[in-house]
Amino acid sequence: MVGIRRLAQHLDISIGTVSRALNGRPDVNAETRRRVLEAALELGYAPNQAGRSLRKGSTGVVGFMMQSGSEITGDGDTFFMSVFDGVQAVFARHNLDLVVLLCSSREDPDAYLRRTVARGFADALIISATRKQDPRIDFLAERHIPFIALGRSQSDVDHPWIDLDFEGLARIGIDRLVAQGHRDIAIAAPADDANLGHIFVETAQNTLATHGLPLPPHRLLRSPPNEAGGYAMAQKIVAMSDRPTAILLVNETTAIGFYRGLHDAGLAPGRDIAIIGFRESPQAKFLSPPLTCFRLDLHALGEALAEALLATMPAYKEQYPLGTVRRIWPMELVEGLSDREE
Amino acid sequence: MVGIRRLAQHLDISIGTVSRALNGRPDVNAETRRRVLEAALELGYAPNQAGRSLRKGSTGVVGFMMQSGSEITGDGDTFFMSVFDGVQAVFARHNLDLVVLLCSSREDPDAYLRRTVARGFADALIISATRKQDPRIDFLAERHIPFIALGRSQSDVDHPWIDLDFEGLARIGIDRLVAQGHRDIAIAAPADDANLGHIFVETAQNTLATHGLPLPPHRLLRSPPNEAGGYAMAQKIVAMSDRPTAILLVNETTAIGFYRGLHDAGLAPGRDIAIIGFRESPQAKFLSPPLTCFRLDLHALGEALAEALLATMPAYKEQYPLGTVRRIWPMELVEGLSDREE
Repeated sequence: MVGIRRLAQHLDISIGTVSRALNGRPDVNAETRRRVLEAALELGYAPNQAGRSLRKGSTGVVGFMMQSGSEITGDGDTFFMSVFDGVQAVFARHNLDLVVLLCSSREDPDAYLRRTVARGFADALIISATRKQDPRIDFLAERHIPFIALGRSQSDVDHPWIDLDFEGLARIGIDRLVAQGHRDIAIAAPADDANLGHIFVETAQNTLATHGLPLPPHRLLRSPPNEAGGYAMAQKIVAMSDRPTAILLVNETTAIGFYRGLHDAGLAPGRDIAIIGFRESPQAKFLSPPLTCFRLDLHALGEALAEALLATMPAYKEQYPLGTVRRIWPMELVEGLSDREE
Repeated sequence: MVGIRRLAQHLDISIGTVSRALNGRPDVNAETRRRVLEAALELGYAPNQAGRSLRKGSTGVVGFMMQSGSEITGDGDTFFMSVFDGVQAVFARHNLDLVVLLCSSREDPDAYLRRTVARGFADALIISATRKQDPRIDFLAERHIPFIALGRSQSDVDHPWIDLDFEGLARIGIDRLVAQGHRDIAIAAPADDANLGHIFVETAQNTLATHGLPLPPHRLLRSPPNEAGGYAMAQKIVAMSDRPTAILLVNETTAIGFYRGLHDAGLAPGRDIAIIGFRESPQAKFLSPPLTCFRLDLHALGEALAEALLATMPAYKEQYPLGTVRRIWPMELVEGLSDREE
């Protein structure tokens, strides 16, 4: 049995034409289709359904792989939906459709990706929730499947990526809290394995050090990245005999639960503990007192992801001569009242 | 040119075998593949790529079409992610993958669906955001594509659907407010065209009538179904010279903005206006005072959708002998403090 490549070589016509002929596309003339079918018969053609679509860029579909499950998204998502909107705005120019590939939290992301690729319905992929070592990156590179990662990883195959400015967030947040007189600052730690989360902690630690301040282990607080996690973290702080005077959060949904946890203990954000939150989520905008946090243009981030991905796809790279995009996405501080005593 | 059906008739073998032969699947023997390719050549085979996958159930992928865009989801989503989780739990039993088809709010959902079907990468579809008249339902029925609707519609092709119990919500909410002594109750109106939203308003109106109470037009408040919409609705009420004493909301994200809108005007939920909210969303759980609202098991809803869909798919219907499922999904009142004066 031979694959499409040998079939094309044998016929001395392009793989694309052979593929179109086998799929009965109207833009292949009858004579060519006849020749292709004859050769397929003669040589014992057996295509790899999966690899074919992904490599040839013929499906018109791009997949965005994200993790689902309450441990990850807090029973919802207020981040990716806006990113998708930006990705779609770019894809709409090219009649490409975005589909979201939901990897359940109960499933191994590497196995999920391999299966998805075998399904063969996408021309290219955007992956998210990158890990420190991420076998998906090596897998996609080996298969020559165009992809971009939302998030950094130590797995590096000269692939494009865009990641949030976790360093900037740690630096700006710590500097601001120190300038307001805080000397005992806690940090909500991200899961170490996700998106190079250690970068955030290291930068926070280094920034504290420039002010002559330590980050002792009991000031590095861990919780699930969701509302309930934030509530539990607040309870932990409320129960401390030596509370920190300030905290820097690194997940947007934790702020919601953190506020309520303080409130239930009769403490107020700002007055009793200064809070700088992560992202100005739709819900964060409606917290009282307003949360000091970081604004980020998710729609523009989605557009940038889409354009950087198109820059790696044979059919589009000339229109998007961006090379291999590797970009730290900026976040802008929004002053609220959660880190002030008024 | 002939399609796969005539090819199969000509060969007197099943469409499934012909399809597998043309796709080079290993489970077709070489002799059969040779016969199929010969006949394809002879008859001038030209398959409909799209229809083929969707009708034959061969892709292993089920699409869930949802609308994106801030006008619809409020820059995020806390509803569908949990439903997806339930759908995936059922599909995992059968090695089926769920992909999410995001129809941008800038796009016509009917055109989007037609294009998606033409892409041909899904065996079956779940559609949401149904409209009073929904051409997608007729389209899918005409194409014999297995599907289920999350939401009711007047378009009826004897298809399966599951919808939330909007009647129950209106009845229980109004009865409760009236029992607490309210005589001037406002209703947040859903968009009339979505999910038969008029059912909610009619039931509220009828329930008020059983208590001898009217629903005058200025007590039917409209807003975009998101946080900002809830904020605007609160501002509208605050500015009224004759405020209603209670309100029944029908969108979960509006509660967040509605609370903040009251707060900014120095009014308190419960004390100044009684609120019964829609769904107990992850954020609603952390509102102060706790929101009286309705709990609904989204994971179980997702499982029910998946099973009802499988009941319509040739490959699975024997395992799921459910017939055509048409089901109103129950919601359970969760007592908070937002509709009490304490």
